[in-house]
Order: sequence, then C-alpha cells, then structure tokens
Amino acid sequence: MAPVGGSSKAKKGILERLDAGEIVIGDGGFVIALEKRGYVKAGPWTPEATVENPEAVRQLHREFLRAGANVLQTFSFYASDDKLENRGNYAADTFSGQRINEAACDIAKEVAQEGDALVAGGVSQTPSYLSSKSKTEVKTIFRKQLQVFMKKEVDFLIAEYFEHVQEATWAVETLKESGLPVAVTLCIGPEGDMDGVPPGECAVRLVNAGASIVGVNCHFDPATCLRTIKLMKEGLAAAKLKAHLMSQPLAFHTPDCGKQGFIDLPEFPFALEPRILTRWDVHKYAREAYNLGIRYIGGCCGFEPYHIRAIAEELAPEKGFLPRASEKHGSWGSDLSMHTKPWVRARARKEYWENMLPASGRPYCPSLSKPDDWEVTKGDLIQQKEATTEQQLKELFKKQSFKSKTVS
Amino acid sequence: MAPVGGSSKAKKGILERLDAGEIVIGDGGFVIALEKRGYVKAGPWTPEATVENPEAVRQLHREFLRAGANVLQTFSFYASDDKLENRGNYAADTFSGQRINEAACDIAKEVAQEGDALVAGGVSQTPSYLSSKSKTEVKTIFRKQLQVFMKKEVDFLIAEYFEHVQEATWAVETLKESGLPVAVTLCIGPEGDMDGVPPGECAVRLVNAGASIVGVNCHFDPATCLRTIKLMKEGLAAAKLKAHLMSQPLAFHTPDCGKQGFIDLPEFPFALEPRILTRWDVHKYAREAYNLGIRYIGGCCGFEPYHIRAIAEELAPEKGFLPRASEKHGSWGSDLSMHTKPWVRARARKEYWENMLPASGRPYCPSLSKPDDWEVTKGDLIQQKEATTEQQLKELFKKQSFKSKTVS
Amino acid sequence: MAPVGGSSKAKKGILERLDAGEIVIGDGGFVIALEKRGYVKAGPWTPEATVENPEAVRQLHREFLRAGANVLQTFSFYASDDKLENRGNYAADTFSGQRINEAACDIAKEVAQEGDALVAGGVSQTPSYLSSKSKTEVKTIFRKQLQVFMKKEVDFLIAEYFEHVQEATWAVETLKESGLPVAVTLCIGPEGDMDGVPPGECAVRLVNAGASIVGVNCHFDPATCLRTIKLMKEGLAAAKLKAHLMSQPLAFHTPDCGKQGFIDLPEFPFALEPRILTRWDVHKYAREAYNLGIRYIGGCCGFEPYHIRAIAEELAPEKGFLPRASEKHGSWGSDLSMHTKPWVRARARKEYWENMLPASGRPYCPSLSKPDDWEVTKGDLIQQKEATTEQQLKELFKKQSFKSKTVS
Amino acid sequence: MAPVGGSSKAKKGILERLDAGEIVIGDGGFVIALEKRGYVKAGPWTPEATVENPEAVRQLHREFLRAGANVLQTFSFYASDDKLENRGNYAADTFSGQRINEAACDIAKEVAQEGDALVAGGVSQTPSYLSSKSKTEVKTIFRKQLQVFMKKEVDFLIAEYFEHVQEATWAVETLKESGLPVAVTLCIGPEGDMDGVPPGECAVRLVNAGASIVGVNCHFDPATCLRTIKLMKEGLAAAKLKAHLMSQPLAFHTPDCGKQGFIDLPEFPFALEPRILTRWDVHKYAREAYNLGIRYIGGCCGFEPYHIRAIAEELAPEKGFLPRASEKHGSWGSDLSMHTKPWVRARARKEYWENMLPASGRPYCPSLSKPDDWEVTKGDLIQQKEATTEQQLKELFKKQSFKSKTVS
Repeated sequence: MAPVGGSSKAKKGILERLDAGEIVIGDGGFVIALEKRGYVKAGPWTPEATVENPEAVRQLHREFLRAGANVLQTFSFYASDDKLENRGNYAADTFSGQRINEAACDIAKEVAQEGDALVAGGVSQTPSYLSSKSKTEVKTIFRKQLQVFMKKEVDFLIAEYFEHVQEATWAVETLKESGLPVAVTLCIGPEGDMDGVPPGECAVRLVNAGASIVGVNCHFDPATCLRTIKLMKEGLAAAKLKAHLMSQPLAFHTPDCGKQGFIDLPEFPFALEPRILTRWDVHKYAREAYNLGIRYIGGCCGFEPYHIRAIAEELAPEKGFLPRASEKHGSWGSDLSMHTKPWVRARARKEYWENMLPASGRPYCPSLSKPDDWEVTKGDLIQQKEATTEQQLKELFKKQSFKSKTVS
Repeated sequence: MAPVGGSSKAKKGILERLDAGEIVIGDGGFVIALEKRGYVKAGPWTPEATVENPEAVRQLHREFLRAGANVLQTFSFYASDDKLENRGNYAADTFSGQRINEAACDIAKEVAQEGDALVAGGVSQTPSYLSSKSKTEVKTIFRKQLQVFMKKEVDFLIAEYFEHVQEATWAVETLKESGLPVAVTLCIGPEGDMDGVPPGECAVRLVNAGASIVGVNCHFDPATCLRTIKLMKEGLAAAKLKAHLMSQPLAFHTPDCGKQGFIDLPEFPFALEPRILTRWDVHKYAREAYNLGIRYIGGCCGFEPYHIRAIAEELAPEKGFLPRASEKHGSWGSDLSMHTKPWVRARARKEYWENMLPASGRPYCPSLSKPDDWEVTKGDLIQQKEATTEQQLKELFKKQSFKSKTVS
Repeated sequence: MAPVGGSSKAKKGILERLDAGEIVIGDGGFVIALEKRGYVKAGPWTPEATVENPEAVRQLHREFLRAGANVLQTFSFYASDDKLENRGNYAADTFSGQRINEAACDIAKEVAQEGDALVAGGVSQTPSYLSSKSKTEVKTIFRKQLQVFMKKEVDFLIAEYFEHVQEATWAVETLKESGLPVAVTLCIGPEGDMDGVPPGECAVRLVNAGASIVGVNCHFDPATCLRTIKLMKEGLAAAKLKAHLMSQPLAFHTPDCGKQGFIDLPEFPFALEPRILTRWDVHKYAREAYNLGIRYIGGCCGFEPYHIRAIAEELAPEKGFLPRASEKHGSWGSDLSMHTKPWVRARARKEYWENMLPASGRPYCPSLSKPDDWEVTKGDLIQQKEATTEQQLKELFKKQSFKSKTVS
Repeated sequence: MAPVGGSSKAKKGILERLDAGEIVIGDGGFVIALEKRGYVKAGPWTPEATVENPEAVRQLHREFLRAGANVLQTFSFYASDDKLENRGNYAADTFSGQRINEAACDIAKEVAQEGDALVAGGVSQTPSYLSSKSKTEVKTIFRKQLQVFMKKEVDFLIAEYFEHVQEATWAVETLKESGLPVAVTLCIGPEGDMDGVPPGECAVRLVNAGASIVGVNCHFDPATCLRTIKLMKEGLAAAKLKAHLMSQPLAFHTPDCGKQGFIDLPEFPFALEPRILTRWDVHKYAREAYNLGIRYIGGCCGFEPYHIRAIAEELAPEKGFLPRASEKHGSWGSDLSMHTKPWVRARARKEYWENMLPASGRPYCPSLSKPDDWEVTKGDLIQQKEATTEQQLKELFKKQSFKSKTVS
C-alpha cells in the first residue's frame, strides 16, 4: 500500500465523512508534547505558545498531519479568558485571549492546507464553572472563543475535556449558535461525571443539547475510555438517539485510576514516563475502537505523532492508504530488516511486537499507584487571579504528607 | 535566577570552555526523537531528513538549544557512504552522502547562531569496519564526512558510537587531520569494548590517538555510563594522561543490559517506553556526572529537550543561569502551584518529585528483561548493499524463537 | 498480656459464644499445608491422611490450636464418597469414606481437649452435584458424612466451599436434620455464585434453609472476601434476617482473580508462593473483618499457624488474651530486639512492618496474571471414576496452549 | 519409579556415600519453619523447642525424611551457651545448653531410624567470636556442644552458618578432635567472607583445617550460592586439594542482596513471603547443583519439606528412586489430572510449570529492595546478656529512619 496523505481534492466536511462511514483520525495531545519540547508550562497548561513560539506549534500540527490526522484542532485548549488569568497566569495580560485564539486558528489553517485535514475550533472546561459562576457567565466565556473561530472560519467545533456534563451542555448550546457541526467529549470514566451522571445519560443530554458527535477524551487510558464510550453508545441506543462516536484517550496506561482520572495519580504530570503506550498498544486500541463502532478515533495527552501514525497504520486496510509518515515506518517493524545486527533483524515481524510485554527497567518501582483522593470538585476549586501563596502551599504540603501516610 | 540562553557575545571554543572549568551541556538524541516525529526510519537510522525535511531537524535543534545545550551536533549520524547504501537503504542513491552531510551542517549552524552554542561535526562507526575492511578503507570513509565538516567550518569534531576502540582510534586519527579539537565516545559499558579492551585502556588509546575529550555515549543508562567513565578516568590517571570527560547516556533505564547494551534488549527499539527517564532521573544523573568530574554532560537516544533542560536546571547554580526553556518550567515542579486542583498544587515541591517511585501502570509486565545474546560482532556483521531477503528473515525468525524458548 | 489458651473451664457452644458477642477464631487451611508437608495430593485434595498419617494431621491441629483457633474443623474436606473415587482416586477403595471421616473426628476431638476449642464436622461440594445428580442423591452423599459426625459427637457443623448456592442449601437442609448449629460458607466473590445469584440473595437463601452462621471461604483473598460478606450482610439486613457472619479467606493475594477464584489463576496450585500473605497482611484483614461486624474470623487455603496467630494477636485487645503460640512471638516483631545485628533490632516496631511493601525478588515476573476462563461449570464437570486418560490430557493441553496464545 | 525411602539395610557413612559418588540430600530449614508453626522465636532463633515441644521438632524431621533427606541435622543451631543467654534469652537459664543439645540428638536419632538417614551434629557461629573473644574461649564454646554429640553418637558433624572463615576454621579444628567426618558451610556470597577472604581461599583454609566437605549455606538464594561454590571449587582445584562440595541455600529469591545476605533485606524476617521459591525453582537448583559437581545438596531457611522433595524428584533418575512423600506428588504436577476442572487438568505437565513466571498479586510492591547497609561486623556486634533496653531501641529506630530516607 503506497503512503499518501491528503491532496488537492476538495475537502468533505466532518459530518459528510462520518455519515459516509469514513474513519476520521484525530490528532494527538498538544500540552504534554509541547511541555516536553519546552513551550508549555505544566500547571496552567495554557496555549500562549501560539503567539510566543508559533513555529513550534506549527511543527507539531505538521507532524500529526503527516502521521495521518484528518482533523487539526486549534491549539486553544484552556484559552478561555478566565483560565488565562487564573492563579498568577500572565498570559491574559500579556497577549489577551483573543490574540491567542486567533493565532491558534491561523496556524492550524495554514498546516491543514498541506493535506486533507479539517480544522476544528476547540473549547474546554472553565474555572468559572468550577467556581460556581452562573450559566450566563460561563456561556459568555465560551462565546468569546467561538467568535474567533467563526471569524477565522474553522470547519467545525469541539467542546472537549469536561468533567461535568452540565457545563458541557452549556458549551454545546453555545457552540451550536454558530450553525457549525459540534463534537463534544467528556473526560470521564465508566463511573460517570463528577456529579455521578452515568455515561449513557451524559451522552443523551449532550445529543439533546445539539451535539452531532459525542465521546470521551483525556483522563483515562484507551481500555477505560472504550468502556465508557460503550456505555454512552448503549445509552443513546436506549434513548433511540443517533450520534457519531469519538474517542481521544490518554497515551498512558492508567488501570489504577480512580473516578477522577490520571490527574490524581501521584505521577502526574512529571513522572508518567513508565506508563506511555507503545505503538503496539495503540494498534490494539485503534482496532478495538473501530470494532466498537467508533469512527472518530484520535488521542489526547501523551499521544505523539508516532501514536497517531499507529492508528492510521492499523486502520489502513479500511481507509485504503497509509499516512505520509509511513514512508519512514514499515508496518509492524518491518524496516528492522535493514538493521546491522541479525537478532534485531529477527524482530522485523508482527508476531514479535504484538506479544511484547515490555519491562520497565525499574525493579524498585511498583506497577500500580494509589490515586490521591481528596474528594474535592466543583465549588471547592475556586478560581483565583493571584498566584498561590507560600502559606497556601505549606498547608497543602502538610495535607498531602498526611494523606500519603494514611493510604492503606 | 533569570533564564537566559546565549547572546551576541563572541563564542569561546570547546577546549577554551572546558579548560576554564566551564560546564558544557550536550544535546540529546536525534534518531529516536525524529523517528517518533515521523522523519527517521528505525532500522537503518540514517539522517536523510536533513535533505527531506529540514524544518523538522531545525526545530529539534532549536528545542535542544532552548533547553540549554551548548553544543549542536550536526545530524550526520550514520551518514557515511557505506551506511547510506547498506541493506537496501535508498538514501545514498537518492541524495548522496555529501548532500546529507552538507545539509546537516547548514541546519546546525543556522540554529547555533540563535544562541551560545558550538557546532560539532560527527562521525560514527561504519559497516565497513564491521565487515573487516582495511584501516585505509575505513579511514577513507571517515575522511569524506570530514571534508564536508571542514568546508562548512564546524567548531569541533566528535567521533561517537563506537563499539570497537580500534575503529574509534582510526576515526580520531582521521579527524585530527583537520587540526580541530576532537572528542570521542564509545558506546561501551564497564566490561569494555567488543574485543574486551577495558574502559581504562580504551581511554588511554584514544587520548594517545589525539582526542582531547573522551567518554561514552548511548547503549547504557546513566548509572552504567558513569561507572564506565569512572573506569576511563582511573585508566587515564594511571597513565598520567589528561583529557576532558564526556557523558551522553541513554534516557532509558537499562539495569538488565548485557555487554552489548540496549540493542539486545527485547524491547529495542519499539517498546522502550516504560524505561524512559523522568526529568528527575536526569537531575540525579547530572549531579552525579558533575561530582565525578565530567564537564561535558549531555544525552543520547531517548533524551528529549526536557531531559536536556533538566541537566541545565540541576547545574544552574554552577552555570549561573537557567536555559531559555525554563521560562516554561519552574524548578522541581514549582509551577504546579498554578494548577486548579489543590492536591496537584501540593506536588509543587522538590521533596515530592525527588522521592517519586513511579508506577508503570503495567501489572502484567515484568520489571526486567533478558537481553538477546547471539555472541556476534565484527566480522559476522557483514555489509550488504541489497535488502535483506524473505528467506534470510525466515531463518532469523526461526533462530530467535529457538533462543526465546531456551532462555533460562 | 500473658498468653493463655483454653483451659479446663466448660466449653461454651458456638452460638452461645457468638450470641454473647465473643470473637471466634477459626483455623487455617489443611490441604495446602499438608500438601507441602507431604501428606496430601494436589489434584484430588482428599483427606485420607487422617488414616494414613494421623500424627501429621494431629500436629497441624495442635499448631492451629496453639495459634489461637477456637474451632478445629475435622479434616473431612472432600471426604464424600463420590469424591473419594473420582478420576482414579484410590482412597474410597482402600479406606472407605466412613473410616476417613471417623479418623478425622477422632483426631480433632483429641486435640481440642488440649485447649478451649470446639470441633466442627465439615462437608463440602460434591462431584455428584456438578454432574447434575438429583437433590435426593446429593443429600444422600452429605448424610453419610453427617452420620459419622453425629456418632462422634462433634460440637457443630460447617458446610463449606460451595460454588452453587443451590447445593449449599441442600447441604444446610441435610445438616439441620442433626439438630446441631449449622454454619455455611460459599467460595464466591462479589459477583455471586456460579449461577449468578448475588451474595445478598445467597445469604438469604442459606439462612432460610436453616444456617445460623453464613459467610465465605476460600477462592479469594481477604479484601475480596470481605467485600462479598458485606454484600451478604446487606442482603440479610434488607430481608430482615439475622445470622452471624463468618470469614475464611485465602492467604494469597488475588486481585487479578476472575469470577471463579484462584483455581483459574495460572499459578494454581504449584506457583502461588509470591502471593502468600505476610502476617501483617493478616493483621489488617482481622481488623477489617472485625470492623465489618464479622465475629467468626479464620482462614482457608494458605493460612498457616502463624497467620492464625496474627488474627489472635490483632484481636487480643478485644479477646483479652494472647494465644499460647505468642510465647514465641512478640507483637509486631518486638522480639527482634534480641537479634545480634543492630539494623535488625531496629525493625522491632509496628510502624516498620505496618508500612512494609515487600519485594518479590522476581524482576522477570509480572505482578498480576490473567486467569484462565473456560466458562465451564456445573453440568460440564462430569464425575468420572476412572483416571483421566492420556488422550483426554492431550486434548486439554492443546486447548490450553491455544488459550494462552489468544489471551489479550 | 516406585517411591521408597530407606529401609533396614545397614547405613553407610557420609564419606562412604560421597566417595562412592552418591547424591546425599540434605534437609531443610528448621528455625523459619518452626517459627511459622509457633515454636521458635524470631530474633534469638534458638532451638529450645527440642525441650519445650519435642513433638513439633520430631514431626518436622519426619517430614524432611519422608521428603527424601539423607541427613537429619540435630536441631542445635545457635545452641551454644553464649547464644542461649544473649540479649535477654531465657533458654540458657531455664534449660541449659546441654539439655537442649541432648534433646536435639535424641529426637533426630529417633526419626533417623525410620529411614535411611544419617544424623549430623551441628554447631554455628557464636556471639563470643563476634565480641572478639579469644580462640581458646570460642573453641571452648564449640567443645561443649561437641561433647554432647559424641556422647549421643551422631554419625558426623557440620559446622554451618559462619560469616568469618577464621571462626569456621576454629570450629572445624574443634570438631576434628572427635575423629568424625566434618562438613563446613559458610554463609557467604561470591564477594567472600566478612573480612574479604574470597570463597576460593576460604575453601582452601577449611580443607586444610580438616574439613572433608565444604560449601555454603543460608544467606543467599540458590543461584548466588552456586556461584560461590563454583569459586570454592576453583580455589580447591588451584590448590590441588580435594573435598566434597555441599550446598544448602535459602528458599528465597535474593538477587538484590548485598554482601551480607538476606538479613539485610528490609523484608527479613517477617515479610519474605513473596520471595519464597516454588518447587520448580528448586528443580532447577537441584539440577544445576548436580551439574556443578555438588553431591551434598540440601536447603536452609525457607526450605520446607516440599522443597526437599523437589530435589529428590529432580535427581530421582540419578538416585534410582523417589522419596516416600512422592506417593502424594506426581512429578511435574501430573496428579492435577485428577482435578475436577479441565483447565486445571491441562496444567498436568512439565512444560507448563517449567516456564511459569508467577505473579506476585502485589501490584503496589516493587520487585527488588535495597538492603540495609550499616557496615558493621565483628567487633561491633557485642554480646550482651541483658535484654536490649528501650533507650537502645529508640536510638536504633532513629538511625534506621535516617537511613531509609537517604537511600538512593
């Protein structure tokens, strides 16, 4: 199969593609990837790099496109005005949310023209909601980003990374004002959202609010996300509702996550390395997602370009072509046949990698962790413009040490 | 401490810096990083991306520079003519070695001007040597790359990734013809080179051949590399020789490696994820390297920009400044104080990360592996211009299955 | 607290004790312990040692008594006539079930007189039920053992190790014919019995059948068993039924068990060593069982005398005395203060052992396994008098190899 | 092969057997096994159970005999007078060393008559030596035990569990006064004894002191012990000395031990469970010991009767018969063919168990530990008649906490 990747043919819209039964490959995670490349700050996780270092954002888009992504999301995660000024973040003052969002659109659109990819404008959960601001106030926050997306003429919209289905429905309703197709993903597991609404009911509410595509993103590994989406699918079927399904999980193994996902794992965000998925883990995920009926298949935090390429390679028989980046990657390791050492050439086969149980090289470490569980959510997570003080931190350190001693 | 990163001041040479007791931070690994980004093929591992996708190579150089690297190595690894045509590699025919090496120099020099970094031209071990070609033939191979480096006026030269000290001395002798300072690293462990020459004696031979800087790169994790360099240091001291020490280990934990390093681990190269160093592992490495008297401290395969930044942050007290990428990274996780969730803010402290024993999230996997051990080296690893045939592969698969069943 | 252990005072009956709120400590597992000592055959697991090697059975009873057990169960597990002749077992022909059961009673009664322990006659699930024999036939099997227990005047009766609540109710009904108090334990987990009857409903049916004490034994680790008993307790409360609760879990960690318990783990029965509970794990179990309202607290397979002693030591404050075996065991390792080496003396404290996360010393092994899952139960598990033939085994080996290759 | 186990034939002496090339199977560990059964106190580890609970000691001897042991060691470990009164031990005052040693001989001799086993009187290292008492004083200590062994007419003598070859030579010299054959084992690893004497030289000194059989016992796992004995064998060969080799390792996996062995592992002695060898690990050990030329093959701490049986079963082809306990144990799990469940019957084969990599069921635990390393040995380990005081313990606790925090 010869690698190709987009072309001069006219682009079909997202619903056109999905309605026709096409597989749409999403892109991977920006904040974790760009943090490692030196352009995003862990903690606030805001995307001012669109203004500060556009070439770095552009390069990552390009790599995802090359890896087979059919959608480029604008790098506007957490680019709501309230987030850009939360807890000492300087981004709002220095650049303004509008400029960050505009730059995000410009970069994504520029790269999308290099292949057959759509551009999706994205919004995500807000500190305002967590601080119990009103529906009107929260919608106003979303609307500011939406205005940029409309001005920049993105192809469709994604509301992603919501822990509370209520806020997500507000986002969907706001985005629907544009008339564009709306996709929405919650960052929840099989136990449901932070208010205990089960995945099936979440899906129903979101479709009723106007979403054409529903699913989950972030917070959990592929296996957990697929269990959650299966529950969504069943909920929609029971309610006789139709929607496309979408999956953008972590590229980290998180079987030990609690209800709140990987944020609560003690390794988040600076010691997640041993959990990173191999490309073979992604092959398995892509196939299972496909078998479950999901047709919008991408990734979130941890998904690097080679992970997206693994989705594209696994589903190449269905899609009919390989991504451009497969010029540099024979399926299932076949290019190892060019290695100098014969025992490495002997690894050039699917059976070898498919059955690999990789060692961590860390015999002094456990294989699972106990998540933090402070049982805190909306209402307790107050937005605060000023930086966290030394005194506030000291109190937190004390509380954490106490918790870690009493874990059973 | 305010982040800065090079400037318009005149650049001091590599020996000037080291002789003055300065710390020189090396860059990280290109082939593994660019393989994941979609630009390098695992197996041949050759750098034709310098011609095919210069913007991707440029971006990675930039990230290392921003992370604090004081040296940018030309991406000319395995760019010898014999390697570019080995086992079906099309790069030699399509681009020629000269063009690939020239482009490598051009890109590195362009980026180096954006900060205070030197450019080092690099050569590495050759298929010709492994196929038992003569000293003259092997030196001719090195000399072709050297001519490009001289024409492009690099700042100094590095002979790296040699498993046999004999070939490394030939490389050093050839590079010394230029009059430029020469650094050399072997990819060996404490047991010595593939012919059994102990590290101490290797170091002596290399300094006697003309190297000003000696050390190890690749093949082993930081702890193992430092043990090897310690033996080199002791060997030099016993021989009353002087040289600067250099360290560029893997960013993978490899306590289970045998004599031949990580190539022999069953996870190489597509399932190494669980072994990737955290940034905190790198802090420890940087401090221990410094304490051992090493002043040229960088990384090899697996070292991403954030790993290099960790070296720069650990040694910032000694260097007197932070790298530019630390604008996006408070030391020891301090920016987590800006996170929404209080239990994540509670992780904003050194004691937390320093004592982290991260879980793999893979309870069905072991923590160590048994390396392949086919006891094959120079003489058996014949260069072959044609691609490996199906029949050759089948014989290898059979041999490997037999091996894996008889491992005890 | 001075160790004591029973005396000449008149023995109170099991219900007298439990009704008064006393803690009753059960004994540990016989078949696994005596298999390791050389007296029981893994596979059939039948107790003909009562006739063949009575001194070995006597010694194990004595050790459990000494460790604090308040009940000695007759070693009559799997001593039903149909089991003693199943699949080539010679025990039925050689000794007869009656003789094996009589000897079991004699030994237990002899040792019980050495302390304050009651003797419980025990029956367990039968091959006849699994081969779909009728209620009458199955009850006849139980009745033969019961007749021995009544002749030998045991103190009360236990029906244990039932996977199907239906068979357990038949056993309870039969045992109730004696007029003695009846305890019953299922070897099920939170998902319920093999027919899918949930634990709460199982408990209700068993109490309605006449049991005064209900709970679980075997098949799962303490944490899992306690979850199951909690469901039983809730079921009884909802049905407004009263019964005492009883817990006799494995002394193996089995977080990876499926619905059918540890039999299905690939390590069963000859490689369970890395899963064995430490005494400190048992302390935790005993406390949690007590807090859950369970007052009959013992163990099953894997529980050695020191594990039972750990229950007795943890609950010594409530019971008011230590077991006799604590003469040789200071609580929480305090006798280590007599060790020669100071760093071992430093381990003589509760905080040290309570927080211990013990290493396996097996870095090439995983921490969890995938259970076999052949989805076979009653009806497929035919009783067969003749030994399994070579041909039958070959077919099984083939099936197993296929399964292990397709496990994901 | 029909199980048999000794008979009325006249017993050949230990050297007669070994000189004839026979395999001699040793017994297993008493202190750990009897601690778990409730008769020995961890910390002092002294054998007063020979007087207090002779039936428990007798039963364990019987189990080892039945499992195939050709030697029963008197349970006189640490039964020197100075040890029986060390750090508050009441045994010396209550029973006297003489009585404990006499009872040990009586029990062992009684059981030995039930099969073809020899009785070996055993001495071990003394607090007096560690407290730097003189050669004369230390020899006097050994001589008191020797007098009992001679009066009771044991078959031969073993000096075992010595960390210092100097004390071991004193023991051998003393035991040789009897005229009986003397075996000697050090509890050292490949790095040599606590004074740094390498294993090869240790063996030479011990043979020169009069030992006919030399080897190692305790402190390390089989693989490590075999490496050490190989060094002893090479040392003897280089010195042109002849001696039989003897191996009695731990039944715990200890790849992470330092020079001082398993005492220093944080899990010692109350959390070693996950490290316990399976019977299949013992098969491998027995075969490797045999292949190395060792003919006295037994076990030490952790070896239960079923572990000794595994030695006997592995070497049954060479010995020509199975032990009596194999009546209850088909080789390589063959009796599982009698299990009710077909997937367990499918485990009735060598290939299955031989390749087993058993899971720990403990995903929150590491696979290796860092040993304590206080660098304390002879001279610092003072004998003290009085119990360790609270104040002494507090100082130790403080020191230990400090150590555990600074481990890297």
